Amino acid sequence: MARVVIVGGGAAGMAVASRAKRVNPKLDVVVLERSKWVSFAFCGIPYYVGCVVKRFNQLLHYPLSEFTEKRGIDVRLESSVTNIDYSGRTLTYKDLRSGREEEIEWDYLVLATGARSKAPKIWPELDEAENAFYIQHLHTAEEIRRYALSLPQGSKAVIVGAGYVGLEMAENLRELGLKVTVVEALGQVAPRTLDQDYAEILEEELRSNGVEVLTGAPVKGFKVENGKAKAVETEKGSVEGDLFIVGVGIEPNTELARRIGARIGETGAIWVDDRLRTSLDGVYAVGDAVESVDIVTGRRVWRPFAQVANKMGYIAGTVIGGRDAVFKGSVGTSTFKAFNMVVARTGLAREEAEKLGYNVVEASLTGRTKAGYIPGGEKIHLKVLADADTGRLLGAQSIGRSETVLWRINVIASLLTVKATVWDLFHADIGYAPPLAPVWDSLVVAARLLMRKLGEVPKS
Amino acid sequence: MARVVIVGGGAAGMAVASRAKRVNPKLDVVVLERSKWVSFAFCGIPYYVGCVVKRFNQLLHYPLSEFTEKRGIDVRLESSVTNIDYSGRTLTYKDLRSGREEEIEWDYLVLATGARSKAPKIWPELDEAENAFYIQHLHTAEEIRRYALSLPQGSKAVIVGAGYVGLEMAENLRELGLKVTVVEALGQVAPRTLDQDYAEILEEELRSNGVEVLTGAPVKGFKVENGKAKAVETEKGSVEGDLFIVGVGIEPNTELARRIGARIGETGAIWVDDRLRTSLDGVYAVGDAVESVDIVTGRRVWRPFAQVANKMGYIAGTVIGGRDAVFKGSVGTSTFKAFNMVVARTGLAREEAEKLGYNVVEASLTGRTKAGYIPGGEKIHLKVLADADTGRLLGAQSIGRSETVLWRINVIASLLTVKATVWDLFHADIGYAPPLAPVWDSLVVAARLLMRKLGEVPKS
Repeated sequence: MARVVIVGGGAAGMAVASRAKRVNPKLDVVVLERSKWVSFAFCGIPYYVGCVVKRFNQLLHYPLSEFTEKRGIDVRLESSVTNIDYSGRTLTYKDLRSGREEEIEWDYLVLATGARSKAPKIWPELDEAENAFYIQHLHTAEEIRRYALSLPQGSKAVIVGAGYVGLEMAENLRELGLKVTVVEALGQVAPRTLDQDYAEILEEELRSNGVEVLTGAPVKGFKVENGKAKAVETEKGSVEGDLFIVGVGIEPNTELARRIGARIGETGAIWVDDRLRTSLDGVYAVGDAVESVDIVTGRRVWRPFAQVANKMGYIAGTVIGGRDAVFKGSVGTSTFKAFNMVVARTGLAREEAEKLGYNVVEASLTGRTKAGYIPGGEKIHLKVLADADTGRLLGAQSIGRSETVLWRINVIASLLTVKATVWDLFHADIGYAPPLAPVWDSLVVAARLLMRKLGEVPKS
Repeated sequence: MARVVIVGGGAAGMAVASRAKRVNPKLDVVVLERSKWVSFAFCGIPYYVGCVVKRFNQLLHYPLSEFTEKRGIDVRLESSVTNIDYSGRTLTYKDLRSGREEEIEWDYLVLATGARSKAPKIWPELDEAENAFYIQHLHTAEEIRRYALSLPQGSKAVIVGAGYVGLEMAENLRELGLKVTVVEALGQVAPRTLDQDYAEILEEELRSNGVEVLTGAPVKGFKVENGKAKAVETEKGSVEGDLFIVGVGIEPNTELARRIGARIGETGAIWVDDRLRTSLDGVYAVGDAVESVDIVTGRRVWRPFAQVANKMGYIAGTVIGGRDAVFKGSVGTSTFKAFNMVVARTGLAREEAEKLGYNVVEASLTGRTKAGYIPGGEKIHLKVLADADTGRLLGAQSIGRSETVLWRINVIASLLTVKATVWDLFHADIGYAPPLAPVWDSLVVAARLLMRKLGEVPKS
């Protein structure tokens, strides 16, 4: 009976386990997870902190018994891998409860080692600050919430890093009655998601909900006294606080992969092929530690996004189970909500596209979510990019107070996946009903604007 | 200076006028419209009746001056075309105010003659009933609202026909405090939109909002006394009421096209090519009177939908303005909202697909609109059909209490437009954030279910 050993019980790892076992029930599937939980909803952490999610176990997609008893997976919690012998096809891990080392043989090895915050390396002084947190493990959710709720109303939280997790945290800490300041090194919020013009709309939303925003303020360090962080020192001055959340970016956990000699890709994440196979026979890798292909450009990219990780896990599990399957890649869709504003993007931003040599044309417009005469519609800002030479869609961004912002971007994302053009977008048959959409949806108007620049029909 | 004469000032006709004039400002563009309004939002009628839309002029997309003064279009209201001399390139119309006949020469003629209710032919007895209405012209909105508001609270409205307009009317008449019964000849509500299983979910929503639903009840006739309809006689008995709305289907207005010898297509609507040219040189046709191509099957279909009519108008106007442009067709997306339930479909239903010879596979599931641990998510029912031989997507239906129902269908619609497959749907990079979508969206789960039946990778 072949054995699959999966290192890491996050979403991707558990997807491999479940799928491999389902496709081939005879496989012996073992998951080694360092923490006390598997299949945790990392993205739910801000909402647990804000008490939108009440109970901790709601962040577990399934109870452990779902995997162990129902799906027949051998899950070993609090198990930290210490060594892998690639040629000997064995692996050693430490049971963190007993302190004992155990050795296990494997036929297939799956690295689902995830990613981690870059902050601890940058600011080691925070190690000794009980009121400074990275958004890294599920247990930090518990710690942040407990600490935030222990502070008097009106205490001040400082969030370092205005990426999506930082902004979701800002909303949730406001929900708890804290004052919140967001500090960002770059000149705008959500720098990896939005262009400057849309970021300004988002900043206005943050400010109107009582969040102070300090952009263009790289952090020089933290003032830590008596085991507590007192202030973050930035190039724009010092910001004092009672609670600090540091979310300045993550990096893939590639140590185990490097130690066994698996190829690391140009992005710094683990290289895999379209079957999620690493460069080493029998060794697979999935999830946030892994790079994959950008379908728009064909380039390799590192996209530590949950929906990508889950698909990777599903495909790797299928392949390990013995059926062929392919993961073609992704197009870079990301989205988040901050207060009432929904932000989404897919594909390339203008600057990225131009850097890659595309001759970019852009349509940018403000539309509405419903027919103008129906109450309750919202403004929606949308920009769509295309390649002037071929008419191929390259990317899009949108922002507005409606969840349909994400769905307009999902339409573009779907079209990017199949390398569709501006003329395809014009013909995309978006449904119309007055309380649901305008008769000329922003997506189709964007196509019309692009057709004015590219021609009404493709160049033959 | 070439002259374009457009017969019909609805959405499609005005789109032609605006676009032709914009592309070639030298054109003399004349619109002949029988009613007192152009560019009216026909689909807004139920919401005007329910006082969701307060003022009548909100149903006009633009004031008349937008077209006449700003865009330079010669709009002639209350002008009814009486004759067209094709070989002489002239047209005669009657000014309904003065009763005078006028003749006008044309270089391009555009038939945007729309569609009309089939009911008057079927039940001529309703002609003399002041409390029976078809949803046909904009002025009926005013008449229905006035009549409904004149009735005592608790009076009874009967809607004949459970298509989307009938159901939108049911909601809006309930808003006005009337009792509402919907009578439908076929065995379910929304028979042209939904399969039976989803129609049952919708019927439950109607009933829980106080609407009586009588399906499988073909109408035999109406009891009309003293100028008032008293009851509708059905094969399941008589239904009495104080107000009757008859929405039993529409048919294209093809009389003018027939009289000049323009080809009528197999669907009974006016035949046009992909530039919206009829079989007669110089004569174009757009909108609800016209058939077009179904991109999924390549067959000609009649789709009197506003978003299709607008696109036709845009393309025809571009072509008449002197630039090449192409209307490839549509995929049959339709959507509506009834109370809190959103319904949407695109492409083929199973029965249609099987009739056309496709070997259909189907995935049907119930998912959620948000991550399970976020409050406020809604159930969403989704079915997706594919061709077992090629893996090509064929269609989808969805129902649930969220406007994202439409947008999931829009994603499938966009993929249908480019003839994408189940594997493309799996890779469609739908964005994820807990308050906006689940990590495995129903769309991707549907792809996974279809891949189980079709194979994880395309047959090579």
